[in-house]
Amino acid sequence: MTSGRTVLTNLTAATLSEQSDGYGLIHCAAIAIEDDKICWIGPELELPEDWKGTAQTDLGGRLATPSLVDCHTHIVYGGSRAREFEMRLNGATYEEIARAGGGIRSTVAATRAASEDELLADALPRVDALLAEGVTLLEIKSGYGLDLETELKMLRVARKIGELRPVKVLTTFLGAHALPPEYEGRSDAYISFVCDEVLPAVQAENLADAVDAFCEGIAFSPEQVSRVFDWAQELGLPVKIHSEQLSNLGGTAMAASHKALSADHLEYLDTAGIASMKEAGTVAVLLPGAFYFLRETQHPPLQELRDAGVSIALATDANPGSSPLTSLLLCMNMACTLFRMTPQEALAGITRNAAQALGQAETCGTLEAGKQANIAIWDVKEPAELAYRIGFNPLNRLYFLGKNITKTQAN
Amino acid sequence: MTSGRTVLTNLTAATLSEQSDGYGLIHCAAIAIEDDKICWIGPELELPEDWKGTAQTDLGGRLATPSLVDCHTHIVYGGSRAREFEMRLNGATYEEIARAGGGIRSTVAATRAASEDELLADALPRVDALLAEGVTLLEIKSGYGLDLETELKMLRVARKIGELRPVKVLTTFLGAHALPPEYEGRSDAYISFVCDEVLPAVQAENLADAVDAFCEGIAFSPEQVSRVFDWAQELGLPVKIHSEQLSNLGGTAMAASHKALSADHLEYLDTAGIASMKEAGTVAVLLPGAFYFLRETQHPPLQELRDAGVSIALATDANPGSSPLTSLLLCMNMACTLFRMTPQEALAGITRNAAQALGQAETCGTLEAGKQANIAIWDVKEPAELAYRIGFNPLNRLYFLGKNITKTQAN
Ligand SMILES: [Zn+2]
Ligand SMILES: [Zn+2]
Repeated sequence: MTSGRTVLTNLTAATLSEQSDGYGLIHCAAIAIEDDKICWIGPELELPEDWKGTAQTDLGGRLATPSLVDCHTHIVYGGSRAREFEMRLNGATYEEIARAGGGIRSTVAATRAASEDELLADALPRVDALLAEGVTLLEIKSGYGLDLETELKMLRVARKIGELRPVKVLTTFLGAHALPPEYEGRSDAYISFVCDEVLPAVQAENLADAVDAFCEGIAFSPEQVSRVFDWAQELGLPVKIHSEQLSNLGGTAMAASHKALSADHLEYLDTAGIASMKEAGTVAVLLPGAFYFLRETQHPPLQELRDAGVSIALATDANPGSSPLTSLLLCMNMACTLFRMTPQEALAGITRNAAQALGQAETCGTLEAGKQANIAIWDVKEPAELAYRIGFNPLNRLYFLGKNITKTQAN
Repeated sequence: MTSGRTVLTNLTAATLSEQSDGYGLIHCAAIAIEDDKICWIGPELELPEDWKGTAQTDLGGRLATPSLVDCHTHIVYGGSRAREFEMRLNGATYEEIARAGGGIRSTVAATRAASEDELLADALPRVDALLAEGVTLLEIKSGYGLDLETELKMLRVARKIGELRPVKVLTTFLGAHALPPEYEGRSDAYISFVCDEVLPAVQAENLADAVDAFCEGIAFSPEQVSRVFDWAQELGLPVKIHSEQLSNLGGTAMAASHKALSADHLEYLDTAGIASMKEAGTVAVLLPGAFYFLRETQHPPLQELRDAGVSIALATDANPGSSPLTSLLLCMNMACTLFRMTPQEALAGITRNAAQALGQAETCGTLEAGKQANIAIWDVKEPAELAYRIGFNPLNRLYFLGKNITKTQAN
């Protein structure tokens, strides 16, 4: 590949292209790559003349898909909530856990106390678990600082991860994640602080690619989130939202009116919310890991989202409190098993639609000429196996920007 | 370790010893190993004089646990059921799936059609996924042949896995798994065939370490299973049972009367069944992967099993139809999240109690002097993390019979 040109041959390609039905399968396919781009993809027999002399890599009939995209994570944080998990299972009440320093406040305290290096060292093994399954585009949120210094620190760590690992990281400022203890009873004042002090500082260092907020009874109201989003739009930053997870507050429609890239969780989403998403082109990001871990019973309105033609993505929501999940493949299985999504929808949800949820549909998420050559090669016979298996990683190799970045390579 | 003697130092040991409460933690621990055995374990400061000159391996404060035991798998089989999974999620009825060749009969047909080498090649990656998480003792059942030749073939493949990989494999003959098509409507005749022809042939080749049966409305009655168990006992083979998964037929009590090593699934187990298990010393093996994948709602009677003092183990039930799960760590999380087991119970369930379920309590399952030196070393701060994380493998290294068998070794 030193010439910058290579052809991958002898594969089944699930292109996930918008034009195709379902997987967009091409059998006996070849993919022609120049530098970091896919130049051509199609049946091997139709490989254009000018590619016929190029060095070929025979992929042994394996399946090729777009590499994976995790479009919603809180993977940078301090401390661990394993003890809280254990206390709860040993019968501790929420009060006892709170007294023992549990809950999101324990993560905020640990994240504030950790150095940038410590946060990075803690996050990297989690990130590596995602990458080992074929992720090359990863969103990382702030939101466990809830003060100026720590929010900036988290975002710097997220940027650093993108420098240290072969993955594109997009960062999201989530100052409006929870009310910090020092603003107890003064949530409007905290929103003002986020808008007036933190967001401008984030923007001055160019630390965020988007702005997110948690709109819920236990967090912030649509009106409060709207103030943050107005300001984000002023600064030219796209927005997204955590909404309708535990109740319906109408945050989704409010976010859609701000042209939100995505609305995430959505268990309690209603018809009006769905219509607003469709109109705004807002992607629905479902998070089955949190649904599973919190033992929720209210399912997101999958059929209604399908009927409305809203794009549906999936993500790990990797976080210490409600989804300590670092596997997108398992996330696919949970989406199928718990939400009854189809394997095809689940695969689109962690490739094409996840890229769309990050505003990256132009460059990533499908196998098409002109897109980045971000390609996962799998030891499976058919795409449904990716969603069907539980706790098994069939990744054979991974191309990121045209380069094979797999560490251990079997043939 | 060429001398056959080594000391592991600077670790936190979760011994899981019977004498201890809970994890049986020893802080600042050392483990003295000679050849394949643990000779001594305790606080490093108390290391006996005659071990002080021995070469030491510093484990950097990591957690040591007994290596893992998967005491219930059907990991050898032909074909894949991914397409059936996909058809069902696309709305196909059971009849449509059956017409398309789905269900257990498709696995039986594929297993019969496969050569020994093909079955082995298909099973090894699944086995390797278990081993990568620290498994060194693995049970494998037959039961997708349901004819003489294929049952023997499956068991030979299972034995072969134990020769090819650094893991002890115990094989189980599960001829009474399902009624094969050629015996449709003649289940008693099939049981006679199993007893008169298959089991003696299995025994003649010494291919099985135990005998299992599926006691359920869709499989065999307690009376039928009892005939198989009588014969197994005649041959000196211990028995175990799949019982009370979908209904209560009393199979568990019948199995306990045959001194069954374990009774597995148990969602519909009643008080009488629990009492019979306690009296017989039969281990309860819970299978949360099948519960999850089948979206069952009836929980096994965890509190009653605890109250009765029945040992509780966990296993993957790795199989293509109802639990395509190849992660014992995930199995722990499912046991905690879905069944509300504690992380300590879950860890005991895949070490000490799983070894007991296989009749191996004398040699494996805990970190104690005299036991085999089968030790997993983990990059976690506390044992609860093993159950808390979802889709993350923190195994740092693995000792099997005193040897470090980890392929990629980080320090
Ligand atoms: Zn989130
Ligand atoms: Zn089973």
